[in-house]
Amino acid sequence: MKIEDVVSKIGPLNEEAMKKARDRQDNLTKPQGSLGRLEEISIRIAGVKGEERPKIKRKVIFTAAGDHGVVEEGVSAYPQEVTPQMVFNFLSGGAAINVLARHVGADIVVVDMGVAYDFEANPKLIIKKVAKGTKNMAKEPAMSREEAIKAIEGGIEAFEEEYTKNPMDIIGIGDMGIGNTTPSSAIAAVITGKKVSEVTGRGTGIDDEALQNKIRVIEKAIEVNNPDPKDPLDVLSKVGGFEIGGLAGICLAAASKRVPVVIDGFIATAGALIAGEIARKARDYMIAAHKSVEIGHIAMLNHLGLTPLMDLDMRLGEGTGAALGMFIVEASVKILDEMATFAEAGVSEKEK
Amino acid sequence: MKIEDVVSKIGPLNEEAMKKARDRQDNLTKPQGSLGRLEEISIRIAGVKGEERPKIKRKVIFTAAGDHGVVEEGVSAYPQEVTPQMVFNFLSGGAAINVLARHVGADIVVVDMGVAYDFEANPKLIIKKVAKGTKNMAKEPAMSREEAIKAIEGGIEAFEEEYTKNPMDIIGIGDMGIGNTTPSSAIAAVITGKKVSEVTGRGTGIDDEALQNKIRVIEKAIEVNNPDPKDPLDVLSKVGGFEIGGLAGICLAAASKRVPVVIDGFIATAGALIAGEIARKARDYMIAAHKSVEIGHIAMLNHLGLTPLMDLDMRLGEGTGAALGMFIVEASVKILDEMATFAEAGVSEKEK
Repeated sequence: MKIEDVVSKIGPLNEEAMKKARDRQDNLTKPQGSLGRLEEISIRIAGVKGEERPKIKRKVIFTAAGDHGVVEEGVSAYPQEVTPQMVFNFLSGGAAINVLARHVGADIVVVDMGVAYDFEANPKLIIKKVAKGTKNMAKEPAMSREEAIKAIEGGIEAFEEEYTKNPMDIIGIGDMGIGNTTPSSAIAAVITGKKVSEVTGRGTGIDDEALQNKIRVIEKAIEVNNPDPKDPLDVLSKVGGFEIGGLAGICLAAASKRVPVVIDGFIATAGALIAGEIARKARDYMIAAHKSVEIGHIAMLNHLGLTPLMDLDMRLGEGTGAALGMFIVEASVKILDEMATFAEAGVSEKEK
Repeated sequence: MKIEDVVSKIGPLNEEAMKKARDRQDNLTKPQGSLGRLEEISIRIAGVKGEERPKIKRKVIFTAAGDHGVVEEGVSAYPQEVTPQMVFNFLSGGAAINVLARHVGADIVVVDMGVAYDFEANPKLIIKKVAKGTKNMAKEPAMSREEAIKAIEGGIEAFEEEYTKNPMDIIGIGDMGIGNTTPSSAIAAVITGKKVSEVTGRGTGIDDEALQNKIRVIEKAIEVNNPDPKDPLDVLSKVGGFEIGGLAGICLAAASKRVPVVIDGFIATAGALIAGEIARKARDYMIAAHKSVEIGHIAMLNHLGLTPLMDLDMRLGEGTGAALGMFIVEASVKILDEMATFAEAGVSEKEK
């Protein structure tokens, strides 16, 4: 099976490269540790890449899109037609992710994992559609187990096709899908063991009454489908989404090629959570870009052992936080690579 | 007097431009408010620039350097010679600020406000030296009132010379000066009214014993000099530094030209604090890049009414946090300017 094959190729971080990177950081012209998380992240990237002074050249954001049958329960503030409309917006360059990807110098690859719309061929769009939207998880499983596997494999294929065409040094992952905070909260609740009400927020902006309804819908979905928390494919199939499965696959494929993955917000982290349950080692390749406004986000990040780089009160998705996060990661490796050492610059070191 | 002249030219934010920018943000293809602080910052920049869709082209980081007589009290982990050594490192491009400025596309202007070293002329260095280091504030005022005025005026001149040569759209402010967390903590204590121990940290990395000594030195400096918290020039002269005064002057001059100022860490914020006491309106032009590890930083930011954009556990200075902060600010104005509206992109709006 493709998933097992990819998982078998995920290796550990390179400790030797990390040690060399740490030594180098300690000899650069600054007080040791004074660049805080920039130092920490640079050392991790050294471990991911297996190089003392890793370089980041090509940056790619994968934005996976899918639709959700559960929208018929009134869980979103926007109509489902917005999913394909936003995909067109991505393709024509007018969305937030386009602006931020241009700003940080990243390419965008949009992946249709399961939008309820037939797109025509477009060089910027990879089509890995599993189906035209999931089923309504409040009534039945969102997808079959076969479809869950197909979604993850679609993500793996999307990554590998892009990587083969033009290898990248880092990726960001983001999402688009009206209603997709609902399956993400369900995944968060099942995998972290938190109460649904503790991990469910307002998504694109629903009111108090709609939030209470959303919580009830998620509770019902979990009750009806009874997903097994120890089986990530079962969780994905019963209360997940196609783009969430695709993002999980992208995480696994990137880790297997030693490409670091910058995770965006709530939905992308749900995908990363599935990936991290399938392959624990994949977590080492992940960097959390930011803390989303969605209340369940931090529980998922804690479960993954990740501390977000930023908190800018964002809750848009698409990969917007990941784009900014990639730029911070790139800053960190440039610090490691480009700064002068005390000896090179003729600067006196700390007094004893 | 030059300072009064500059202060008289600091106008209020342009409310009309801010209202238009807010309306535009609310019509861009994203849920209202979903870009959080990016939206908020873009609206403020609109108010600063007086434009609905402000552009940021040229970015400049001013790194002001100075020495401190108080180092003879053993308050720093590094010898004083590091101040000029690091200035040379800035000029040759090997310091952290050089790497990060290149990364974000900003120019660097180094300003010698009072380094204990005679630099030769260099096109990248503006020399506004008030004296070769301050006096030891634990024994006498760090500088005379005339010197404090000269430091602020030096900063104003440095900004205006650069602005006249090649106008910039945004600036960042940073510092270099062995020992300069000591006067910064003193300024923080006097102006915010906090205890010295609450606003004094480890600077470049002193141990517990040295930290206790540093606190005693600052307490003594305040006791000996008795600075008047209501008179920022008195505070600067008694327990300040030349680069801190220079940074205050740069803040005032930038605000007078409607140029936003991204403040770096602890020392830069001490300069901004002095500027904000001289001219309250100057605060509207300031954006706090990050929260420093130095424990007194947040008290100063609270006093200024600023919320930092990031917390990356940084404590280096030089303008390193400001460089990353400028990039976030630039992202925010690009979002405001470049994103498609719902009508332009044919995307359906929120359902009622």
